[in-house]
Amino acid sequence: MNQDEQYMKLAIQMAASTKGQTAPNPSVGSVVVKNGEVIGMGAHLKAGEAHAEVHALNMAGERAQGATIYVTLEPCSHYGKTPPCAEKIIQSGISRAVVATLDPNPKVAGRGIKMLEDAGVEVKTHVLKKEADDLNEVFYHWIQSKRPFVTLKTAMSLDGKIATTTGESQWITGEEARRDVHQYRHIHDAILVGVNTVIQDKPNLTTRLPHGGKHPIRVVLDTHLRTPIDTPLIQNPEAPTWIVTGSEVEKEKIDRFTHYEHVEIIQLSEPTISIEEILQQLGEKDVTSVFVEGGAKINDAFLRAGAVQQVINYVAPKLIGGQQSPTPIGGEGIAKLSESMQLTITEVTQLGEDVKIISKPI
Amino acid sequence: MNQDEQYMKLAIQMAASTKGQTAPNPSVGSVVVKNGEVIGMGAHLKAGEAHAEVHALNMAGERAQGATIYVTLEPCSHYGKTPPCAEKIIQSGISRAVVATLDPNPKVAGRGIKMLEDAGVEVKTHVLKKEADDLNEVFYHWIQSKRPFVTLKTAMSLDGKIATTTGESQWITGEEARRDVHQYRHIHDAILVGVNTVIQDKPNLTTRLPHGGKHPIRVVLDTHLRTPIDTPLIQNPEAPTWIVTGSEVEKEKIDRFTHYEHVEIIQLSEPTISIEEILQQLGEKDVTSVFVEGGAKINDAFLRAGAVQQVINYVAPKLIGGQQSPTPIGGEGIAKLSESMQLTITEVTQLGEDVKIISKPI
Repeated sequence: MNQDEQYMKLAIQMAASTKGQTAPNPSVGSVVVKNGEVIGMGAHLKAGEAHAEVHALNMAGERAQGATIYVTLEPCSHYGKTPPCAEKIIQSGISRAVVATLDPNPKVAGRGIKMLEDAGVEVKTHVLKKEADDLNEVFYHWIQSKRPFVTLKTAMSLDGKIATTTGESQWITGEEARRDVHQYRHIHDAILVGVNTVIQDKPNLTTRLPHGGKHPIRVVLDTHLRTPIDTPLIQNPEAPTWIVTGSEVEKEKIDRFTHYEHVEIIQLSEPTISIEEILQQLGEKDVTSVFVEGGAKINDAFLRAGAVQQVINYVAPKLIGGQQSPTPIGGEGIAKLSESMQLTITEVTQLGEDVKIISKPI
Repeated sequence: MNQDEQYMKLAIQMAASTKGQTAPNPSVGSVVVKNGEVIGMGAHLKAGEAHAEVHALNMAGERAQGATIYVTLEPCSHYGKTPPCAEKIIQSGISRAVVATLDPNPKVAGRGIKMLEDAGVEVKTHVLKKEADDLNEVFYHWIQSKRPFVTLKTAMSLDGKIATTTGESQWITGEEARRDVHQYRHIHDAILVGVNTVIQDKPNLTTRLPHGGKHPIRVVLDTHLRTPIDTPLIQNPEAPTWIVTGSEVEKEKIDRFTHYEHVEIIQLSEPTISIEEILQQLGEKDVTSVFVEGGAKINDAFLRAGAVQQVINYVAPKLIGGQQSPTPIGGEGIAKLSESMQLTITEVTQLGEDVKIISKPI
């Protein structure tokens, strides 16, 4: 790892620490270096607040003159909620900029680089590009497809069951795996379940981590608006609850929820729920990532819609058995193996007594 | 790792290389050391042939006088197919013996050690005991329970399916995982399937490895003796085929197989097949290990009989879906999670595109 890569690695580590808190913005880190000394560091913390480069340059102050700036993503060139970072870099007197990866939006990619080069700043790109891209896969997916990045989460026994024949599922996995799930809730913009889960399990769907955490928006797929009023998602206003219904639900039924400020009813255009339409609406509402904790039926709907970007699978060392015991994905199924969804495993970890397998569609 | 452990480790490595070829004997390795130089090495290769100590002492020859012998298992003290190794050690003039673990048979454990000590040989035991015990868990199980060690093998998709709704299952896993299965066939005394697998898949159930391998005995559970004559297990005599039937199968039906020398019909005492009775009979026939490659029904029978010592689970990165798609273990299932079989994961490996999870009942 050469010097440029070392400083970029630090910038990536800083950016990674903000994962989940910057949506709908990407995670970005920046380091300013002069004569081999770090003179500024920063990361983008929250949408609407200063970008990473601004924090790093503020820390460097006048010493930025003639220094090198490392930034994990191409500096912006447009006036958004903040002035363009490329301009700020030029004004600081920076003489060299090292950039990991270009803007994922093809309409503006390269513009920030050009602005810097036109002002006489030496620019080097593609330093630890893959690491920087991996960091923001969710953001890239959202910015390019206008749909949230969907992660399907399942927890099953060694023989592929998510519950016993009577539906008992608490708990298949051990404590460490369950804590890990809360870390994922923290970094996702929204969590999604079906109304049957709401009725049967009365979940809170909040993030419970030892030192706090951000609650995701709680999205319920509920074609006929059967969500009870006296359930935690309605009674507990800790996080927004969005209930997605079909087009034929009567206004009176919807009006029962108007009293609850954190509750929003999203009525789709058709009597049945279309995964495609939900994702489109969520994307428009700046939801960049959805963590699907639905049961076998919801998972099947996402699989059939081809709307899965990642699968997180906890495998618990139990044998449950039962031809009729529910499995992670239900529905009608397929006849030919060649019609199955092919993924590639990107991570395998032992978590307490369980195993976590992360995979992505090929 | 001290010097005794280093030499013992070598002896264990030598023993490990013979895994699967010594049944019904354990794998044993031995090293003879004098003045810090290795002067003899040996391992038991095959039941009926020389024990590890004999090979090692033969290599050492007269130099064994005053040397130390390392052996992974307590030297035998009885006249079996070969004279007792403890006597051979004493006669060689060995002055010190280091032993990893005692004989697993409680009736004779300690006798070999006592014979050595009575003859004035200094004895040290329990050096790398756990490693040595792990090596022979199959043998220990068989010698102590008189039943073969049962390994359940399953291959499933990320959503717990072993086939599509129409039963297509070839292939869920990739090439590396399938090759790994043949390594397990090589080290098992027997492979076991149900008659439905024989009828549907027409398998050979032999070991196909790039450089050869030992074929396991092919055991078919076939209550009503429905195994067809024109199937590879009958037509191909590469390995013995044992067909286990219920008590009510007629003699004429059985006689159809007498023509085939490699085929044996094992008729049980009851009309339906009892896993317990099969295992007892296999154990008596010196089958120390069984690799169960049966479908969901056979696996369920072993689970309910509590007759599983190890589960090897290949997880393939595919999503198949389908509420009715078959899963690794079928049957009636259980109502309460607390009734599930609890295991502990002992190994997780990535094999090509797949993951292998090995677990053992707690």
